Amino acid sequence: MTRTAKPACHPVPVPERHFVKYTFLEVDPAWRRLEALQRDRDKTEFAIACADFADGHLLRAFSLVGTRGDCDLMLLSQAQNLERIHEFHVVLAQSGLMKWCSVPHSYLAMTKPSEYSDESRLQVRPAHAKYLFVYPFVKSREWYGLDADERYRIMQEHIRIGREYPSIDLNTSYSFGLDDQEFVVAFETDDPADFLDLVQRLRTTEASRYTKRDTPTFTCVAASVPRALAALDGQPVAELEALR
Amino acid sequence: MTRTAKPACHPVPVPERHFVKYTFLEVDPAWRRLEALQRDRDKTEFAIACADFADGHLLRAFSLVGTRGDCDLMLLSQAQNLERIHEFHVVLAQSGLMKWCSVPHSYLAMTKPSEYSDESRLQVRPAHAKYLFVYPFVKSREWYGLDADERYRIMQEHIRIGREYPSIDLNTSYSFGLDDQEFVVAFETDDPADFLDLVQRLRTTEASRYTKRDTPTFTCVAASVPRALAALDGQPVAELEALR
Amino acid sequence: MTRTAKPACHPVPVPERHFVKYTFLEVDPAWRRLEALQRDRDKTEFAIACADFADGHLLRAFSLVGTRGDCDLMLLSQAQNLERIHEFHVVLAQSGLMKWCSVPHSYLAMTKPSEYSDESRLQVRPAHAKYLFVYPFVKSREWYGLDADERYRIMQEHIRIGREYPSIDLNTSYSFGLDDQEFVVAFETDDPADFLDLVQRLRTTEASRYTKRDTPTFTCVAASVPRALAALDGQPVAELEALR
Amino acid sequence: MTRTAKPACHPVPVPERHFVKYTFLEVDPAWRRLEALQRDRDKTEFAIACADFADGHLLRAFSLVGTRGDCDLMLLSQAQNLERIHEFHVVLAQSGLMKWCSVPHSYLAMTKPSEYSDESRLQVRPAHAKYLFVYPFVKSREWYGLDADERYRIMQEHIRIGREYPSIDLNTSYSFGLDDQEFVVAFETDDPADFLDLVQRLRTTEASRYTKRDTPTFTCVAASVPRALAALDGQPVAELEALR
Amino acid sequence: MTRTAKPACHPVPVPERHFVKYTFLEVDPAWRRLEALQRDRDKTEFAIACADFADGHLLRAFSLVGTRGDCDLMLLSQAQNLERIHEFHVVLAQSGLMKWCSVPHSYLAMTKPSEYSDESRLQVRPAHAKYLFVYPFVKSREWYGLDADERYRIMQEHIRIGREYPSIDLNTSYSFGLDDQEFVVAFETDDPADFLDLVQRLRTTEASRYTKRDTPTFTCVAASVPRALAALDGQPVAELEALR
Repeated sequence: MTRTAKPACHPVPVPERHFVKYTFLEVDPAWRRLEALQRDRDKTEFAIACADFADGHLLRAFSLVGTRGDCDLMLLSQAQNLERIHEFHVVLAQSGLMKWCSVPHSYLAMTKPSEYSDESRLQVRPAHAKYLFVYPFVKSREWYGLDADERYRIMQEHIRIGREYPSIDLNTSYSFGLDDQEFVVAFETDDPADFLDLVQRLRTTEASRYTKRDTPTFTCVAASVPRALAALDGQPVAELEALR
Repeated sequence: MTRTAKPACHPVPVPERHFVKYTFLEVDPAWRRLEALQRDRDKTEFAIACADFADGHLLRAFSLVGTRGDCDLMLLSQAQNLERIHEFHVVLAQSGLMKWCSVPHSYLAMTKPSEYSDESRLQVRPAHAKYLFVYPFVKSREWYGLDADERYRIMQEHIRIGREYPSIDLNTSYSFGLDDQEFVVAFETDDPADFLDLVQRLRTTEASRYTKRDTPTFTCVAASVPRALAALDGQPVAELEALR
Repeated sequence: MTRTAKPACHPVPVPERHFVKYTFLEVDPAWRRLEALQRDRDKTEFAIACADFADGHLLRAFSLVGTRGDCDLMLLSQAQNLERIHEFHVVLAQSGLMKWCSVPHSYLAMTKPSEYSDESRLQVRPAHAKYLFVYPFVKSREWYGLDADERYRIMQEHIRIGREYPSIDLNTSYSFGLDDQEFVVAFETDDPADFLDLVQRLRTTEASRYTKRDTPTFTCVAASVPRALAALDGQPVAELEALR
Repeated sequence: MTRTAKPACHPVPVPERHFVKYTFLEVDPAWRRLEALQRDRDKTEFAIACADFADGHLLRAFSLVGTRGDCDLMLLSQAQNLERIHEFHVVLAQSGLMKWCSVPHSYLAMTKPSEYSDESRLQVRPAHAKYLFVYPFVKSREWYGLDADERYRIMQEHIRIGREYPSIDLNTSYSFGLDDQEFVVAFETDDPADFLDLVQRLRTTEASRYTKRDTPTFTCVAASVPRALAALDGQPVAELEALR
Repeated sequence: MTRTAKPACHPVPVPERHFVKYTFLEVDPAWRRLEALQRDRDKTEFAIACADFADGHLLRAFSLVGTRGDCDLMLLSQAQNLERIHEFHVVLAQSGLMKWCSVPHSYLAMTKPSEYSDESRLQVRPAHAKYLFVYPFVKSREWYGLDADERYRIMQEHIRIGREYPSIDLNTSYSFGLDDQEFVVAFETDDPADFLDLVQRLRTTEASRYTKRDTPTFTCVAASVPRALAALDGQPVAELEALR
C-alpha cells in the first residue's frame, strides 16, 4: 500500500507522445434535403480528405446516429504534430459535407505515460471493437490536494476492478491546458452491457468521489469512413463502395 | 433492516437485457409552412420507418405538444442489439419529416435487474396507460459511498411508498457509461394528479436527499405513431388512417 | 407553534383540480418582415384558436414585449383534463403565427390544496390585475428533510408577510413529476413597486434559505388576446377589433 | 458600528420611483449584407422611435461593438410607468432594424432608496461619462440571513472604498420579483483602468463574500443613438446626421 | 516567506497600461458555400482592416481550425485607448467576412503590474511562439478573503514551478469589472507537451485550490492574418500572398 507513486513527469523528451483529436459533427438537416447526387459528391470529398490523412496517421470513424441527439459522426485523428491535426481539419473543412456541418463537441488531447499504471499506451490503437465510449473527464481539486502516494493507492482499486473486465479496453489521453477537460477517456468493447456494469460498479470506489465532471458521455458505433458517411443519409457513397 | 443487498452484478450472460432509446424530436416551424401534400408525404415516410421497426421490436410514440416547449414528439424504441437501434435511426433520418427535425433530447439506456427490488422488468411493456412521465436521473456520489446494505434499507422506504400508488407503473433503465445520465426513469399512469402527489410525497424520503439531477422532466401523451404525427400539424396522415 | 401540519395528501378523488399551462412564445424576427396582410391573417388564426378554447375554459394572454428579451407573448390556459390542454396546443400550432414561433419557456402544473394555507385556490382566476409575475420554483432537498411541523412553522412567517400586502394576489400551482420545476408561482398586482418590495423583504425570512431556484422571473403585462397580438408588430388585428 | 439600519421598506407611496430597462441588441449578420439604402432606412426608423420616447423620458444609447461578442447595442430607457416602457418597445419592434435583431440580454428594474446609503438616486442621470459598466447582481441567501445591522456594517466598508474613487459614479436599481437578478448595477466613468482597480480591490471586502452572481459584465461605450447605430455597419444615418 | 505583498494598487497614473481584446470568430458554414471569388473578396476586406489597425498597434492572428469546434479564428488586438479597440471592430464588422461570422467568445482586459511578480508586462509582445493557450480565469471568493501576505506566499510556489519551464511564456491581463472573468491568461510556447505537463503539475499546488473557473481553454495556432484566413476555406488570399 505504500509503493511510491511515480513522480509527476517533468519536461523530458518523450518522442512517442501523440496528439489525439476527437471531432464530433452534426449535419444540418437541410443537407438531407439536397439531391442525392450532391450529397454523394459532398461525402466523397469528405472521404478523400480522410483517406489522405489516414495514409500515415491513425484515423477512425464512428457513427452516433441513434445513440445521441446532438451529433451524427465522430472522427478520431492522431498525429505526433499538432500542425498536422490542424492541416487535416483545414482540408476537411473544404469538403462539401463540412459546408453543412457544425462541430458541437471537440476534444484535443495528448497521450502520456500514466502516473498510476504501466499499461498506458502512447498511441491510440487501430479499430478493434464494435463500440467506443468516450467522455471528457475533470477531477475535483480535492483530488489534486491529496498526496501522490494516497492518489496512487486510491487508483489501484479502480485499476483492479477494471482488470476484472478484460474484454474492455481503455485509452486515456491528457488535455490539461489544451482544452476544457483534464482527460479524454475512451473505452472500447464489443459488449455495452459489460461496460455499463463496470461503470456502475466503479461508482462505489473511493476514486469516484473525486469526479467533478464526466459528461457528455458518447456511445460511438465503430465504422469505416464510408459506412459512417452512409449512415448520415442512408445512401452508400458510390465511388467509395470498394473501401467498405 | 439487515437483509443483505444483492451484489452489484458481474458480467454474466444476461440474454434478456434490452437497449432502450428515447428520441425526442422538435420540428422546425418552417416545416409547418410547407404544403399539406408535402407534409403528408413527409409524415408517411416517417410512419413507414416506424412500422418497419415495430415489426419485431417494441416501438411506442408520444406527443409532447402542449406539455413541453422544446420538443413535439418522442419515440421509445427497444432492441436486444444496439446495431438495430442505430439502423432504425438511420432509416428514420431518411424520412421527409426528419429532414426538418432536430433532436433536443436523447437518452440511451439498457434494462437490468434492480439491486433493490424483484419487480424490475427487462423489457419495456407495450402501451397500457395514457401518460408516460420520463426523466434522466443522476444520484450524488455520496449515495455510492454508502454501504450496499444501507442503500438497500433506504430504497425500501422509497419502494414501499411507490406501492401505495398501484395505478402507477415504473420502468427504470440504466445508462451508466452509455449516456450522460445514470438512469432513465419512466412512470406510466392514467392519472397525472396521482403521480404528482406521489412525486411530491417522495421528496420527503431519505432516498431523495441523494438526488443530484432529475430534470428535464417530460409529460408524454401516449399515442399511436399516426396520431403523434397528426398532432404536429393537425392533419391526419391520409394513407395511414386505417392504422389509427 | 405546534399546530399539526396537514398530512401530505394521498390519492383521494379531488374532482376540482385543474391543469394549468404557461406557454411563452418568441416570434421569429423574420415574421415581422412579412406583409401586413399576411401578419394579420396569421394573428387572426391564432386569435380564433384562443377564442375556441376560451369558450368553456380559462385562457389569459400577456405581453412580454419590453419586459423580457427571450419571449414576446404568454398564454395561460387551464382545463380539468390534460388531453384538452394538448388539443388546444395542437390547434394553436396550425395557426399562421405559430409557424413562426418558438416556445423558449413552458410550464405545466396542476392546482392543489396547500399544506400550509387554507387560502389556496383550485382554479386560476380570470384577469383582475394589470401585471402577472411568474417564476418556476424549486426548493432545496434540505427543506423536504425537515419535519412537516417545522415546515409548517416556517411557512407561517412567509404567509404572514404576504398578507401585509393585500393588493398582491398569489396563485401557486404544482409541477412535481410533470415538469422541471416543483411549483409555478404567479403573483398578480397593479403595483410592481409593491411587489418588488415584498419580494425583497421575503429574502430575509427563514423560508427563503430553502430556495434552490426561482428563475427565470417573468414580468407579464395583462392583455386581451388581440392586444397581446397587436403588441407583436404594432398592428391591431382588423377582424378582431371588436373584441378588444 | 451599531447605527441602526433603515427598516426594509413597506409599501408607502414613493411617487418618484422609476422603471429602468436595459435592452441589449444583437444584429443578425445577414442584415449587414443588405443594401446600404435599406440599412439606412432600417436605422432611421429605429432612431425615430428612440427620439419619440426620449421626448419626455430618459433614453441613453451605448455601443458594445468591440467590447462584447454577444451584443452590439444597448438602450437604457426609463419611465415612471411600466406601460410606457412596454409601449416604447412595441414601437421599437416595428422599426426595420429590430426585424433583424435578437435581444440576448434584457434587464428590468426599478429605482429605490438604498438601505445602506443616503446617496442613492431615484432616477438614472443623463449621460455624463464615456463608459458605462453594467452587470446583474444576485447576493447569496446567507447575506439575507444576517441581521440588518450586520449587513449595514458590512456595506459601510464597501461604500467607503467606493468613495475613494470619486471619478466613478454608481447607479443601483432593484429587480426583486421583476426579473432574474436582484439588482442591476451600473457604474459610469471616463477611466476604465480606475474602475478595474476599484473592482479588484472590492474583491477583498467582507461584502464580496456574499456575491452569488455578478455576470455577465458589460463594458458599454456611451454614444448618441445615431452614433450607436452607425457603429453597427460603419455608415452614418444620412437623415440623422444633424443629431450627432 | 513573510516578505510583504505589494499593496493592491490605487488609482495612480499608469500611462503604459493597455487594453487587450481577444475576439474569437466562428464562420457560418454557409459562407464556405459561396463562390471562391466572393470568399477571396470577403477575406481581403478583413485583412485590410487588420493591416490598418496593425499599423501602430499590436495585432496578432491565430487559427483554431482543428483545435476547437466552436470557433475558427482569433484576433488579439491591443491599444492604450478603448475607443481605438471599439473603432477597429467597427471597421472589421464592415468587411465581407464578418457579415458571415458570429463571435462565440470575446474577452476584454487590461495589462497591469502584478501583485505577486516583478516580471509582468504591460504590453502583449509580438508573436514569438507557435502556439498560444488562452483561458478566462476566475478565482474563488475564499482566495480574496485570505491576507495579502498569505496570497503572496501561495503564489510564490506557483511562480517557482512556472520558472522550471523556461520555454513557456506567460501573459496575464486583468478584466475585473470590464468583462465576465477576472483575468485572461495566455501562455506561449512551441511545445504543447511541455505546457500540458506544467498545467498538470500546477494542479497540485496550493494556489490551484482557489480556482473557480478556468474554461474554456483555447489552443491557438499562431499565424499571419492571411494564413489564418486561408485556413478558413483552404484558399490563399490572392492579393495578400506577398504578406505571407
